[in-house]
Amino acid sequence: MVIIMNPDASRENINEVINVIERAGLTAKVMEGASQRIIGVIGDKTRLGAAPFDAMDGVESTVNISKSYKLASREFHPTDSVIDVDGVKIGGGTPAVMAGPCAVESKEQLFEAADIVKEAGAQFLRGGAYKPRTSPYSFQGLEEIGLKYLAEARERTGLKVVTEVTVVEAVEKVAYYADVLQVGARNMQNFGLLKEVGKCGKPILLKRGLAATLDEWLNAAEYIMNEGNPDVILCERGIRTYETYTRNTLDMSAVAAVKHLSHLPIIVDPSHGTGKWRMVRPMAYAAIAAGADGLMMEMHPNPAKALSDGPQSLTPEHYREVMAGVAKLAAFMKNEHLLGA
Amino acid sequence: MVIIMNPDASRENINEVINVIERAGLTAKVMEGASQRIIGVIGDKTRLGAAPFDAMDGVESTVNISKSYKLASREFHPTDSVIDVDGVKIGGGTPAVMAGPCAVESKEQLFEAADIVKEAGAQFLRGGAYKPRTSPYSFQGLEEIGLKYLAEARERTGLKVVTEVTVVEAVEKVAYYADVLQVGARNMQNFGLLKEVGKCGKPILLKRGLAATLDEWLNAAEYIMNEGNPDVILCERGIRTYETYTRNTLDMSAVAAVKHLSHLPIIVDPSHGTGKWRMVRPMAYAAIAAGADGLMMEMHPNPAKALSDGPQSLTPEHYREVMAGVAKLAAFMKNEHLLGA
Amino acid sequence: MVIIMNPDASRENINEVINVIERAGLTAKVMEGASQRIIGVIGDKTRLGAAPFDAMDGVESTVNISKSYKLASREFHPTDSVIDVDGVKIGGGTPAVMAGPCAVESKEQLFEAADIVKEAGAQFLRGGAYKPRTSPYSFQGLEEIGLKYLAEARERTGLKVVTEVTVVEAVEKVAYYADVLQVGARNMQNFGLLKEVGKCGKPILLKRGLAATLDEWLNAAEYIMNEGNPDVILCERGIRTYETYTRNTLDMSAVAAVKHLSHLPIIVDPSHGTGKWRMVRPMAYAAIAAGADGLMMEMHPNPAKALSDGPQSLTPEHYREVMAGVAKLAAFMKNEHLLGA
Amino acid sequence: MVIIMNPDASRENINEVINVIERAGLTAKVMEGASQRIIGVIGDKTRLGAAPFDAMDGVESTVNISKSYKLASREFHPTDSVIDVDGVKIGGGTPAVMAGPCAVESKEQLFEAADIVKEAGAQFLRGGAYKPRTSPYSFQGLEEIGLKYLAEARERTGLKVVTEVTVVEAVEKVAYYADVLQVGARNMQNFGLLKEVGKCGKPILLKRGLAATLDEWLNAAEYIMNEGNPDVILCERGIRTYETYTRNTLDMSAVAAVKHLSHLPIIVDPSHGTGKWRMVRPMAYAAIAAGADGLMMEMHPNPAKALSDGPQSLTPEHYREVMAGVAKLAAFMKNEHLLGA
Repeated sequence: MVIIMNPDASRENINEVINVIERAGLTAKVMEGASQRIIGVIGDKTRLGAAPFDAMDGVESTVNISKSYKLASREFHPTDSVIDVDGVKIGGGTPAVMAGPCAVESKEQLFEAADIVKEAGAQFLRGGAYKPRTSPYSFQGLEEIGLKYLAEARERTGLKVVTEVTVVEAVEKVAYYADVLQVGARNMQNFGLLKEVGKCGKPILLKRGLAATLDEWLNAAEYIMNEGNPDVILCERGIRTYETYTRNTLDMSAVAAVKHLSHLPIIVDPSHGTGKWRMVRPMAYAAIAAGADGLMMEMHPNPAKALSDGPQSLTPEHYREVMAGVAKLAAFMKNEHLLGA
Repeated sequence: MVIIMNPDASRENINEVINVIERAGLTAKVMEGASQRIIGVIGDKTRLGAAPFDAMDGVESTVNISKSYKLASREFHPTDSVIDVDGVKIGGGTPAVMAGPCAVESKEQLFEAADIVKEAGAQFLRGGAYKPRTSPYSFQGLEEIGLKYLAEARERTGLKVVTEVTVVEAVEKVAYYADVLQVGARNMQNFGLLKEVGKCGKPILLKRGLAATLDEWLNAAEYIMNEGNPDVILCERGIRTYETYTRNTLDMSAVAAVKHLSHLPIIVDPSHGTGKWRMVRPMAYAAIAAGADGLMMEMHPNPAKALSDGPQSLTPEHYREVMAGVAKLAAFMKNEHLLGA
Repeated sequence: MVIIMNPDASRENINEVINVIERAGLTAKVMEGASQRIIGVIGDKTRLGAAPFDAMDGVESTVNISKSYKLASREFHPTDSVIDVDGVKIGGGTPAVMAGPCAVESKEQLFEAADIVKEAGAQFLRGGAYKPRTSPYSFQGLEEIGLKYLAEARERTGLKVVTEVTVVEAVEKVAYYADVLQVGARNMQNFGLLKEVGKCGKPILLKRGLAATLDEWLNAAEYIMNEGNPDVILCERGIRTYETYTRNTLDMSAVAAVKHLSHLPIIVDPSHGTGKWRMVRPMAYAAIAAGADGLMMEMHPNPAKALSDGPQSLTPEHYREVMAGVAKLAAFMKNEHLLGA
Repeated sequence: MVIIMNPDASRENINEVINVIERAGLTAKVMEGASQRIIGVIGDKTRLGAAPFDAMDGVESTVNISKSYKLASREFHPTDSVIDVDGVKIGGGTPAVMAGPCAVESKEQLFEAADIVKEAGAQFLRGGAYKPRTSPYSFQGLEEIGLKYLAEARERTGLKVVTEVTVVEAVEKVAYYADVLQVGARNMQNFGLLKEVGKCGKPILLKRGLAATLDEWLNAAEYIMNEGNPDVILCERGIRTYETYTRNTLDMSAVAAVKHLSHLPIIVDPSHGTGKWRMVRPMAYAAIAAGADGLMMEMHPNPAKALSDGPQSLTPEHYREVMAGVAKLAAFMKNEHLLGA
């Protein structure tokens, strides 16, 4: 941590800052510049608690140097983590694909979707049983019945199941039925939920919040890991910006950034990332070329009849085309050694 | 709802859209423009469910005309709502002030703060017992002990207590101790929590999400009201933008916008809105002049020793100055009839 | 400037950074932390040119401490600047008001507007003769004829004239007719234009760019001042965010921030800032309460017939109401000593 | 255009709107909904001028349906445009690469860079002679001398030259030396400059503004094309968001969006888009996989000594690696028919 003093800070102001640092058992180093002094803090910053230097007289601002997350950080764990979901791996060079409808609407719809998903070569079936919706009057999901259909679809196809959990009370139930629990963008800083899924014993897919920085996202992963669950998969799904043509702005560079900052695998969701099915294919290819560890895509047997997110859902036909391209491209990237640092 | 067709949409595409509308018992009106056709939907749109016109062949985009919230809307309830918190009113022309430390740190700190808050003329004591923090290693609050201290401070001063609830499991407990339950910005779309506080029997202070639109915010209020709780107070606390000088960008115009769209009272939090105590005073005055129904401000007996949010906390001395100015300004605005539509 | 090294930076990496600093005649101070080293640079940073430490091996990132603008900075000029426009002052405690139509459309329209503007108590007539429009097919302004009408309106009413200049070639002409030259939001980083208006001998109204940080805005002022023109008036007019209900998000806190960082006067434009005439009055009051040095507002004799920006233009009737309120409020703020640091 | 009336609009309000539409020789169609009426406008909207329906009594809002740009639109020109730069094609399936230093610093630096750029297989040499810089005290470029060096480097290598023009006065000069004129992000809505380069007879590389929507960007292209210059190449270079880890947020989805909305070629600049050289390679690959028509990348013979933008410049070694990967990937995408609608 570096503390930047005002140009007109007094000697007394500076001494008071130094005192706070030294009282915490740390060392202060003062640099006298031409017009400003800055004070560096040497030692384990957590011993400072939340000492609010910014509020002290004569302090202009403070700059944090070390990151606040550790378990999620690549410094702490230099090699890539590979998450093993009952034999299916996420991370490690071969992209995993999670596909399926936005919401589980009926057994027939889900089974039809699952068969298509499986046949085209994905490893995971996605589908929401608990749907977080902006309006209380929108379809909220089939809840436990939806979970049962997902489990039956797993029996039928061998696909692993990933589905969202939105409330603490449902974590145990969702963990019973699903292979991977998804924490959605709107809950990325629902810290109670993060702690609970940190104890559930299943891998967690952590979507980036609508307006979350990379630092906040990795700190959210830290909440889960700090409860003893190391199996966190990050999912970039677009951030909120001023551009309204797309539903969100897919931050493709997050793939490269996360690979630098963290050892956790990262996948990309081009369906929510763009909100338009026409853009899913090019963005899926881009994600693979950028080095993503997988994709999450919405596919509906009949998007025009979907109860939610129809505009961004692929038809079975387009989905198969995307999957074929993704498979070829992923193999090419690997064979040509175009990935990795 | 208006559906905009592609310039090259076929007659068949158009008929299919019309069929979906009519199957729902609604009326479709087609307008033939120079190069494009648009189709209007007449009738109660909720009967359409989530019919995903966007995903249908030939559809360029859709535009929603009617709002998705009703209970929170001024159309539904033309006169201003005034929330009565055990005799203290929020809304109706005299601004209410909620002040106190970011977090309850100790009985001594809280009592000292409460005495200052009371003496300078506020009606509510704020203080966090459950703190949502970006990092799992930051101070997370005193939890139930903090709630007890708040209740004791109410006994001592007569101030009403407003405090945040972050998880469904704690709603009952917080509702037992507090007069107003706060739902924080990070939980604005934690729909499970919104439903739960909708049943708790106490007024709710609903902070705007970090990147929430006005429409999403009013829909979040709708979740609470739809459970039978009409007592929702909105709180603008700054939104996330590209500007980094301030912690958030305080959207002062939200005061005027909410007054137009909704009947619910709206207060402003210039402490979180700016992140800098120096800016609290001018932004508090601006909020009152804009017609806000109240203020929430952070004040700490000793900001330089605060365990959280020190940089944005007022000292007792500055707090008293702000309160004196707010009182004068509020009286002036009322006497001169400068508020209201 | 502080240079933060990677945790795994070598001794050689550190020495190379120190060499670059010392070759520029400056002093390097190394702080050895628990897991990271940081290097402070002591001396006049401009001697470093653009030495790109970020690109050097072992460097994680750099942090700038001193500001890049000087003439616009309050450190350089501690007392408030008051701009004298031919006897009318901007800054110094009494808000100045600039009002008029978005665009000069005809002599009749302008004269009618000018008379209303004058009568209600403003000091400046605004009106665009050169209009920067998103589409090449929108009305682009009357150009020199518009300037002549503005000069005639000045003769008629005694109001000072403020109008926008969009291209270098027109600076001389606009400076001939106008009292204050406006540089619009879209040209805030049109550096050629900034330099040219820096030589024109008239005060400049510099609008904040659509997505400009405070730092970039003050640097744009620096471009003008660096050419010898100290008379820069800043104008906050809303920034671009994800919120679409308002045309822009009016950053009211910029008033307080600019007062802290700079000595230049700052006014607020609630018309562009919100895009809705209904919101102009509350935001005008808020700006005055926040300490703004003035207002710019759009008023049109008949907004429903305006050739541009009708939705955000006040009618004469609403304008008079806003002006009356502003006058009372400004007097109140001054008499009660509610402004200033 | 669709005009949405307030729920409480009177019959008179509606008639007045209809009158405005019909006076312009257009047809109004009224749809009576359950609680709201909407009015559709049939015919050539440009005949309405800027009739400000939003400002009329009883009007809630208006929605534009047709796009304001025509020449740049795919509706107007369904097949992809291919820009021919003296025999080198941009668009049409084989990505073009523009590489070189941010700024021309000296003849030696430029020649060294040009040789490396050429040898690794790019078609264009980039390098700034006129540099738009945030601070007036930063290096502003070598101006005409820089242009001469660029022309000499073209002689030496056969590379085409692309360089930025920042002011109207320099357009003729830059057009004399360069093969492609770049309009930078900060000038994307400098309409005077857009019109001037529309008359210069050379292809234009139009960078997306820092906070420009796709609609504004395509309208900026329209300004150039409307002056008779059809040869516009769009360049996505990152937009401004709340995320600060990267210099900008590269909007990769703009590639797919522009391909849908327009016939113009679009290239991607991962150097400015991320601000970090480490992220250039993955983002370059992603752009190619997304279907971009080319890349612009910063490469400096010695980034640690660059006078600007060192942190985002590739070393020659990394540049060669990226170029080899791009070539392979582009050939793969084409051979496997993974591109195109």
